[in-house]
Amino acid sequence: MSDFLSETKLSSTELLKGNLLHVFRDQVRLPNQAVALREYVVHPGAVMVVPFLEEAQGQIKLVLERQFRYPIGRIMIEFPAGKLDTGEACFDCAVRELREETGYLAQQWAHVGVLHPLIAYSTEFIDIWFARHLTLGARQLDEGEFLEVFAVSPEQLLLMCQNGSITDAKTLVAALWVQNFLSGNWPLEWKTL
Amino acid sequence: MSDFLSETKLSSTELLKGNLLHVFRDQVRLPNQAVALREYVVHPGAVMVVPFLEEAQGQIKLVLERQFRYPIGRIMIEFPAGKLDTGEACFDCAVRELREETGYLAQQWAHVGVLHPLIAYSTEFIDIWFARHLTLGARQLDEGEFLEVFAVSPEQLLLMCQNGSITDAKTLVAALWVQNFLSGNWPLEWKTL
Repeated sequence: MSDFLSETKLSSTELLKGNLLHVFRDQVRLPNQAVALREYVVHPGAVMVVPFLEEAQGQIKLVLERQFRYPIGRIMIEFPAGKLDTGEACFDCAVRELREETGYLAQQWAHVGVLHPLIAYSTEFIDIWFARHLTLGARQLDEGEFLEVFAVSPEQLLLMCQNGSITDAKTLVAALWVQNFLSGNWPLEWKTL
Repeated sequence: MSDFLSETKLSSTELLKGNLLHVFRDQVRLPNQAVALREYVVHPGAVMVVPFLEEAQGQIKLVLERQFRYPIGRIMIEFPAGKLDTGEACFDCAVRELREETGYLAQQWAHVGVLHPLIAYSTEFIDIWFARHLTLGARQLDEGEFLEVFAVSPEQLLLMCQNGSITDAKTLVAALWVQNFLSGNWPLEWKTL
């Protein structure tokens, strides 16, 4: 289906090898045989973790972060997330990022899915995990990383998505999963560590 | 709140002025007074349109596109979207992109919100609009733009989000809004043209 939409690589040039950003420009052949240029960021991929805190009364809270995001110029509310280290498996990265950024260890994990944040000009994918049965250890933030951890109810999370307090795409996507998981519509398979 | 998280610009260097990508590296002062580098793509912003087709029997279908996305290397399913032209208002861009990519004109529009697709390394925002009372005109694709238009029910849209057929972040975020708008939880204000 839709094979007539595909583009094929003719050549590739590295445009920028920065400290963070790795940018390429490729010549591609379009479906109508014309030649066009495609510029894009090459990214190793990332994970996002949605941590479920179970409170004494059986109520659920979700662990979020406030972090200043320089390209946006403001403090953003988001679920814990981070880039894969070289050769690192997504699940290992999820466990590591949750511990480093929030201090939490989770006994149960569920793989939720994957999202592509910016399909027009980045190869990045974000692997999505839910984590529950949390116990608190010590945070180990990266050098130069500053963030604040807090928790909200699922209702508060959805309200913040509706009223524009949350605009980070990955966190909005997580809210779609939280809503449908908690309603029982989108069940998940949990693995115990 | 959380002002101790902020970073301030010390200097800025243009790293790349490509055909599409405009990349900067800034020196910033961190909350602990240390100096760090931030690399990011400067983007003019974009819009996404969620078009609601009302069928004869009163059933709703949503207009989607299949488009080959070179950085991902596959055909992606997404709502119509596009970049702001210089000086263009978001609403004008929404009307234009809907007409160019799908051929539809909408009588009613609602502003839904905004999302930031990639807060770690892009300034891009995507302004989100719902459009309804559609009439079909003629498509006017950009040169070198190839895409296929189709329509699905809201139930099919959500199933495709759940089963991984849709991984584009903006389209997943749109699904969160479609679900909560149709359930009556997140009402919208419609303007008639």
